[in-house]
Amino acid sequence: MVKLNHHYSKLNSNPQTSSTEDFFGPLTPTVAEALENASREMGSPETCKGYGPRQGYPFLREAIASHDYKGLGIESDELFISDGATTDLANFQEIFGLESRVAVTDPAPPLYIDVHVMAGRTRLPLKTGGYGGIVYLPCTEKNRFTPEIPNRPSDLIYLSSPTNPTGVALDRSTLTGWVHYAKANGAVILFDGSYEAYLRTPDAPRSIYEIPGAKEVAVEVRSFSKTAGFTGLRCSYTVVPHALKVLDGHRLFSLHSLWTQRQQTKSNGISYPVQKAAAALYSEKGQKEIRQRIDQVLSRAKALRDQLTQQGYKVYGGIDAPFLWVKGPFQEKGILATPGSHFGPGGEGFVRLQPSGAL
Amino acid sequence: MVKLNHHYSKLNSNPQTSSTEDFFGPLTPTVAEALENASREMGSPETCKGYGPRQGYPFLREAIASHDYKGLGIESDELFISDGATTDLANFQEIFGLESRVAVTDPAPPLYIDVHVMAGRTRLPLKTGGYGGIVYLPCTEKNRFTPEIPNRPSDLIYLSSPTNPTGVALDRSTLTGWVHYAKANGAVILFDGSYEAYLRTPDAPRSIYEIPGAKEVAVEVRSFSKTAGFTGLRCSYTVVPHALKVLDGHRLFSLHSLWTQRQQTKSNGISYPVQKAAAALYSEKGQKEIRQRIDQVLSRAKALRDQLTQQGYKVYGGIDAPFLWVKGPFQEKGILATPGSHFGPGGEGFVRLQPSGAL
Repeated sequence: MVKLNHHYSKLNSNPQTSSTEDFFGPLTPTVAEALENASREMGSPETCKGYGPRQGYPFLREAIASHDYKGLGIESDELFISDGATTDLANFQEIFGLESRVAVTDPAPPLYIDVHVMAGRTRLPLKTGGYGGIVYLPCTEKNRFTPEIPNRPSDLIYLSSPTNPTGVALDRSTLTGWVHYAKANGAVILFDGSYEAYLRTPDAPRSIYEIPGAKEVAVEVRSFSKTAGFTGLRCSYTVVPHALKVLDGHRLFSLHSLWTQRQQTKSNGISYPVQKAAAALYSEKGQKEIRQRIDQVLSRAKALRDQLTQQGYKVYGGIDAPFLWVKGPFQEKGILATPGSHFGPGGEGFVRLQPSGAL
Repeated sequence: MVKLNHHYSKLNSNPQTSSTEDFFGPLTPTVAEALENASREMGSPETCKGYGPRQGYPFLREAIASHDYKGLGIESDELFISDGATTDLANFQEIFGLESRVAVTDPAPPLYIDVHVMAGRTRLPLKTGGYGGIVYLPCTEKNRFTPEIPNRPSDLIYLSSPTNPTGVALDRSTLTGWVHYAKANGAVILFDGSYEAYLRTPDAPRSIYEIPGAKEVAVEVRSFSKTAGFTGLRCSYTVVPHALKVLDGHRLFSLHSLWTQRQQTKSNGISYPVQKAAAALYSEKGQKEIRQRIDQVLSRAKALRDQLTQQGYKVYGGIDAPFLWVKGPFQEKGILATPGSHFGPGGEGFVRLQPSGAL
């Protein structure tokens, strides 16, 4: 008699049935053209592509390494191309043992916690709405939505900047503190940089690898969804540095090797035309278009921020992120609103807002 | 201190670093055109698409249900679109408990077993090359490569037709026997129909759902990779019937609900242009092109079969599958050869062959 994974039924929230996030589309002209050209290639015997490298095509990994990680010493073979930040953030936990303790900002995207509930890394639901066994890192108005080092042991730490859903950019000293903590405690940081392209605060690190020592403790995930309208196309990447090793028992294990094993076994890589489209972002024209796009999204967010502030709302975010974090109930047409409680108990009383519609 | 998933290090074989399978490309004209058109749509504010339904677009699910499952009573909402049979075959096991016992044909694609090793569903490696805790179903010349009902309890049963790597089509009575076994023992069949389009033997069921009662015990996975040159594009689908329920404890659970939960949580669906390309396969022109394509591949396989038979080789497969299963050592240029041992201990002494190159 087959047995089920009983942890699945421990998930409190219903899985998202529709997305709460806008699509930031359409593709910019350069990207759309690259997608079309690569699609045409697939129809010709001379240029069609079969199975690609499971880690992603070198042309894309090299473009990312030389542009997005310029000066940070990330090599193209430390990059893994994937079909979305969701996929990698959901799957990366598979390489860790069930006894590893998870620390998550509160509020945070439900995904960070839900995958651990379903894997069996949490205990009973708490009355507050969270789960036992999870170390919640409160991000409140009081601490300026900045996660502080916990006094309970934490092994797998989820951080993001700009932080979703509060839109706050983590500063250098906060990230340095977390890197030191991880190093001292044999912890691993899963750094979600999905909205990195929106960071405008000058001192805010764009990548966790700007912090010395981060390569030894952190994985970084980024997505083309929010920056380049790829929500309907699906492309993202994850950095797993070779320097990232975990001591387990008496042996040092490379997370790069373990993640390679996971991806080589369970995935066949992602669509060639989609990778060509992503690579086009790194052309001069592609970069220019995308900068304009992001400026446009941010100016919309700023306009909404100004308007709401004038109306007397307490507003956070919207400077380093396309969304705002607003205190109080809210309802208005043409604005994408997600109740704060969607992001965990710490989101109670807030709403995440985003100007909506095609650009 | 973070702990690792120790089961990962139990995997004997190196994960595949390059594919052993040909790409069956290029895309046919109708499909390539649909891909190009959908790519163009993504670049315009009027037609671009953001996040799609995580289960796949209804236009594709409806086309599949009405064409591939005509008369079999499979509804479009029992279909889940995915980025490859590998992905779904790798992930489906997540919804089952670790105590469920896995039965796999021997030989079989390594994926069927490797994901259970990495999840912790196997015991120590066997001297024969397999893993303890797995029920191997020998497929040998003696039993005409047909998996027989085992005398040990089996809960999660992997079957495929045409069977990979032997190329043998399972007949109606064999499949009926397995469906009865699963029903009587509370087991679930994972039926891999990736090569279904190549079945030519008149009585061989194309879908496990042709067997009465199969909807209550079987999941079926199919891929556009082998039939329509989608290896570089990535698209597949999985059928999880509503009738498929599992009694665990005193409660009946719907696998459709559990798989929905898994997919809604861990995936954001697949690329819109790729789904449009797949849907174009179901147009009259698309169907005609694909039939020609498959006939072409099969006639290549038949030519190779005839040639090898004349040379004195013992040859199986190549009638209901694009590949041959050949006894003895083999080396020849222009032919894709995978050593039988890649498919498990039961593959020893054989080689899987496939005519290679674009069509």
